[in-house]
Amino acid sequence: MRDVYHHQLDEILVELEYMTHAVSTAVRRSTSALLTAHLGTAEEVIAGDAQLDAAGEAVEEKIFDLMALQAPVASELRMLVAALRMVADLERMGDLAAHIAKITRLRHPAPAIPTELHGVIQDMGRVAQRMVDQAGDVIKSRDVTAAHRIESADDEMDRLRSSQFRLMMDDSWQHGVEVAVDLALLGRYYERIADHAVSMARRVIFLVTGHLPTAQ
Amino acid sequence: MRDVYHHQLDEILVELEYMTHAVSTAVRRSTSALLTAHLGTAEEVIAGDAQLDAAGEAVEEKIFDLMALQAPVASELRMLVAALRMVADLERMGDLAAHIAKITRLRHPAPAIPTELHGVIQDMGRVAQRMVDQAGDVIKSRDVTAAHRIESADDEMDRLRSSQFRLMMDDSWQHGVEVAVDLALLGRYYERIADHAVSMARRVIFLVTGHLPTAQ
Repeated sequence: MRDVYHHQLDEILVELEYMTHAVSTAVRRSTSALLTAHLGTAEEVIAGDAQLDAAGEAVEEKIFDLMALQAPVASELRMLVAALRMVADLERMGDLAAHIAKITRLRHPAPAIPTELHGVIQDMGRVAQRMVDQAGDVIKSRDVTAAHRIESADDEMDRLRSSQFRLMMDDSWQHGVEVAVDLALLGRYYERIADHAVSMARRVIFLVTGHLPTAQ
Repeated sequence: MRDVYHHQLDEILVELEYMTHAVSTAVRRSTSALLTAHLGTAEEVIAGDAQLDAAGEAVEEKIFDLMALQAPVASELRMLVAALRMVADLERMGDLAAHIAKITRLRHPAPAIPTELHGVIQDMGRVAQRMVDQAGDVIKSRDVTAAHRIESADDEMDRLRSSQFRLMMDDSWQHGVEVAVDLALLGRYYERIADHAVSMARRVIFLVTGHLPTAQ
């Protein structure tokens, strides 16, 4: 039978998974609110961010208590330090989903993104959410191959961001400055969500292999 | 006489201060490169980011070793956990200064920012750099009043960002989409540098008082 201490260590991983699900939902809903100019959904994502922060703080306190009271051995301490970093990643991803929702709220009742540009947002939202889901799976499975796959998905995000820039900088751009600025910032938010998913995957790789993958 | 262990704890704070100075320099130089379209300076900021990351990793390893080998009491452990977070803040601020430099490089030999808009960039660069310097001072002094002053400086950054948005969204905007997109992203980078300085100040307040200031 496992003791209370190891049960508490496992519990932290379960709570990280729970936070990852919440972030995935926030990314999906903030994208949906953006494409439908749906204020209610945007407001819910913004309000939900405070809950995510509270969940993060609670996990941080648990991690701190384990560090302070259980004198973890080095490998467990590595796991706890990695968990602290992942909590920070997840809180930040929640902030970014809320930032996406705030652009919907700012432009409401007008849609922030004209219909002709929905494709690029849909693609970025889809890739970002998939990367968040994969990060959640990797926390559970500690599967290094799956963790590396998240880095490939990030290449897809980079390509989407480049094609978004080409679109805006093209002479045929006809949506004006406001849409361009919103789209540039939205692209940045999705890209940062993807970066944090990569960062989580890299921490799992480090925990399992003892080596950080070479930065891209 | 202080023992080796407490000397090592002090050393970590000294290294955080050192990193803060490096970040302050990077912010100042990336702004200067932007306003003078100086490729060499921009390249140096970009190259310097790798050094900053290496310094951050070295400090992280020292923090980890102290945690693993010295079984720090709760107050010291709080300090070490806060230091881990501050290292992450500082690495991120270095990345953001490099992002600013990359916009200079991307547009070179053309200047990214037309002369008429230098004022807003100068102001943001100045406020961001001051906040980084103040964060460094606060790490050293642990002065809670000075830490709260960083939050007021952040209000100034928010005002600068709002006035920047008004400028871009105004009908009289005549610099086109590309400059607007660059300016929006630059504004975001300076704002995030400021956020990280606030985050560092809040961690010092927490260490000294045991309470996090209410989020703004």
